[in-house]
Amino acid sequence: MLDEVDLEQLKSSLCCGKLMKDPDTLEKYSRDMGGFYRMPSAVAVAECVEDVSRVMRFCNERRIPVTAWGAGSSLTGAVVSDSLILDLSRLDKILKIDATNYYVHVEAGVVLENLNKELEKHGFFFPPDPASSFICTVGGAVAEGSGGLRCVKYGTVKDWVLALKVVLADGSVVVVGEPLAKNRAGYNLVQLFVGSEGTLGVIVEAWLKIAPLPDVALRRVYAVFDSWVDAGNTILEVRRSRIVPRMLEFFDNVGIEAANKLHGVLLPYGEAMLLIDVEEYRGNELPTLINILKKNKAREIRVAESEEEADKLLQIRATMYLAINALSKARIIEDVCVPIDRIIDYLAKVKELSQKYGLTIAMNGHAGDGNIHPSILYDPDNPEEVVKANEVVDELIRYSTDIGGTITGEHGVGLQKMRHLSYQLSLHNGPQVLGLMKGLKKLFDPNNILNPGKYLD
Amino acid sequence: MLDEVDLEQLKSSLCCGKLMKDPDTLEKYSRDMGGFYRMPSAVAVAECVEDVSRVMRFCNERRIPVTAWGAGSSLTGAVVSDSLILDLSRLDKILKIDATNYYVHVEAGVVLENLNKELEKHGFFFPPDPASSFICTVGGAVAEGSGGLRCVKYGTVKDWVLALKVVLADGSVVVVGEPLAKNRAGYNLVQLFVGSEGTLGVIVEAWLKIAPLPDVALRRVYAVFDSWVDAGNTILEVRRSRIVPRMLEFFDNVGIEAANKLHGVLLPYGEAMLLIDVEEYRGNELPTLINILKKNKAREIRVAESEEEADKLLQIRATMYLAINALSKARIIEDVCVPIDRIIDYLAKVKELSQKYGLTIAMNGHAGDGNIHPSILYDPDNPEEVVKANEVVDELIRYSTDIGGTITGEHGVGLQKMRHLSYQLSLHNGPQVLGLMKGLKKLFDPNNILNPGKYLD
Repeated sequence: MLDEVDLEQLKSSLCCGKLMKDPDTLEKYSRDMGGFYRMPSAVAVAECVEDVSRVMRFCNERRIPVTAWGAGSSLTGAVVSDSLILDLSRLDKILKIDATNYYVHVEAGVVLENLNKELEKHGFFFPPDPASSFICTVGGAVAEGSGGLRCVKYGTVKDWVLALKVVLADGSVVVVGEPLAKNRAGYNLVQLFVGSEGTLGVIVEAWLKIAPLPDVALRRVYAVFDSWVDAGNTILEVRRSRIVPRMLEFFDNVGIEAANKLHGVLLPYGEAMLLIDVEEYRGNELPTLINILKKNKAREIRVAESEEEADKLLQIRATMYLAINALSKARIIEDVCVPIDRIIDYLAKVKELSQKYGLTIAMNGHAGDGNIHPSILYDPDNPEEVVKANEVVDELIRYSTDIGGTITGEHGVGLQKMRHLSYQLSLHNGPQVLGLMKGLKKLFDPNNILNPGKYLD
Repeated sequence: MLDEVDLEQLKSSLCCGKLMKDPDTLEKYSRDMGGFYRMPSAVAVAECVEDVSRVMRFCNERRIPVTAWGAGSSLTGAVVSDSLILDLSRLDKILKIDATNYYVHVEAGVVLENLNKELEKHGFFFPPDPASSFICTVGGAVAEGSGGLRCVKYGTVKDWVLALKVVLADGSVVVVGEPLAKNRAGYNLVQLFVGSEGTLGVIVEAWLKIAPLPDVALRRVYAVFDSWVDAGNTILEVRRSRIVPRMLEFFDNVGIEAANKLHGVLLPYGEAMLLIDVEEYRGNELPTLINILKKNKAREIRVAESEEEADKLLQIRATMYLAINALSKARIIEDVCVPIDRIIDYLAKVKELSQKYGLTIAMNGHAGDGNIHPSILYDPDNPEEVVKANEVVDELIRYSTDIGGTITGEHGVGLQKMRHLSYQLSLHNGPQVLGLMKGLKKLFDPNNILNPGKYLD
């Protein structure tokens, strides 16, 4: 799609960025964290907003597809492309931390963890914390509408975006939203871009809400169960008790064993484990939680006694991804999210599918949101297992949407779930909704050059 | 636009609702709470979603404008029309309170105050609290994206909507969003309808997030200042101290006097007053606040000692609207919202305009959001004052947008601010943004029958 002449012209039209097409670079940009693969024709690395605008104008005129790239940490193929990759990671400046209006103004390439380190100095934080915070960029997190551990209390990225600077398909630079506590001027275009996965425009700057760091201590609790049903009932009872924990995570026996192997620690063995943060000031939260755990037959309940112990537990959670990766040559990470009151049925369905297909499925994730991620382990060199793994995904997604859940809680659609997206929309929303979404895409990107072949396409 | 034949046909097409056009009914629906006036041709009162669908299908085929109506509590003319009013207030059922998934599923006509009374029985609440909560409906609050007193801590209505059932312009019934803690399936259409003021579809049901009632007591503080500059500095310092109050309201001397007159109470006289809620568990919040107040020369600082005293103060705030109304034959309520760090400049500008035009301008509202409402008092029988009042509005809006504020924080655009909306969009957002918004309108309502002549029109 990009011939040599195009490339030369594009290169000379850049303001300060560079264009690359050597095999090593192309290889580096060919794969995301979910293992999705497309070999790009070239990579443009933007150094300023003007670069992004020129790339878009150039590509729009010539109908060349463009896929924006932050850190490549998508799990669904949202950032891979066989055409042009537009890397925004060099736009990495924190432009303003506003401690009166409670927002931060940043460029799209700022890494979330770096942002939080800087905010901490001012007594603030940006609550959504995707597991990939150590590399993922603001632009990516906004384009994906990402979630994370703390989202059970604070909501996901979508709840923290005030305004965006966006380069539209034709290269024009606009701002949507306002960096204000309140704004009702016109339709909410901000939330169209959040979660649009680079299909409506290229996000180059963001004004994000920030929150004062909580001035109360956390108590981090873990509990191990002999039965995942008891763990499931605990999740339900925590919700019904109206405790709002800052974290409520679930792991099954596969995860516990994998973590013990990776870290050389000795998490007590059990069928399931919960990791829960409650705030200390709420006099009754910790005792209420302990009562619920006991009532639901938690075998071992432990409240972390030191900051080190608490940090260690969080680290185990944060690296669960790697621990499970080490168990198998390949795996599919699922992201369905179900109504929380159906969580036991959902866990049972996963057990059933694991038995039916003879595949190990590790379960870990955000129990308090109904968003426990199944990891379907398989051998990619065994064609039968590959087929089975994909059948598990299909059954799981069908089941989850049939009980009122969604195909994706926080990872998005990308290449992975295009088919499933239409299934969910037609089942839950009505046939006109997909049409309206396609109309939106056409309005913002009439030539279909923004990350085509994904999402609704 | 609606002739007798149309009316007869529309009447017979209704499922269980009724159609009215007697003069008393028309008169009743001709005016909103902001005093905007249009005499409708007829009023259809829906009794079920099917009625709404049939009305829309009928009107779409015949290009008859339809304006949805909840309680008529708009302050900007968003609900008045010279064509057909579609009253949704009879769709007033609470369909489900889900204490595990933390949402409530309601019909559009449910009154916010009634919803909160019901939720309280289950230990929950719906945080956004427009001053009109005692009459305003869920559908109206969502269509307006309303704010309120508690929004300084909890955000506005937009932050609490999970999903909506909407009747589109052609009569088809769709659901947008999912009643789930997390959902990333497709573009966020929910937030397009929030704040769209009935121009994209008719909201008939909503799934709203709810929150557990806080289990900590409030301390309600009021403080009176001899200088509004000191009150302004207090607002800034509260923000910078990273206290997040549950309420942070400002009144000026006009409001204090009006309240004393209405309630026969004796609020101490001063140039400005702040009313602030802090939560008791945060050991340091109350003493920090008192220190800030003292440092900024608050003359009288009082922490409400009883629930009655606290309730009385809130009642004074809630009825400030009526108290100020009683001072003058007419007034314009403004809704600009400015960056919080510009609040002193903004107050100074209002003082300047009041002197320049010789009109009383009462200031009261949500100081913690930068959204203090000016009430411009004038005599509607004095043509010169009418002109002046409108000039004040224009200057104020121009000033606020020029310093980075918005024309509307929570009341919306309606008839009142169409001109100002384009000003703000072209100043802050770029010329393409208005075009995209118009494209959205065309996509959802190709025949322009949904509340036309307002908003972007």
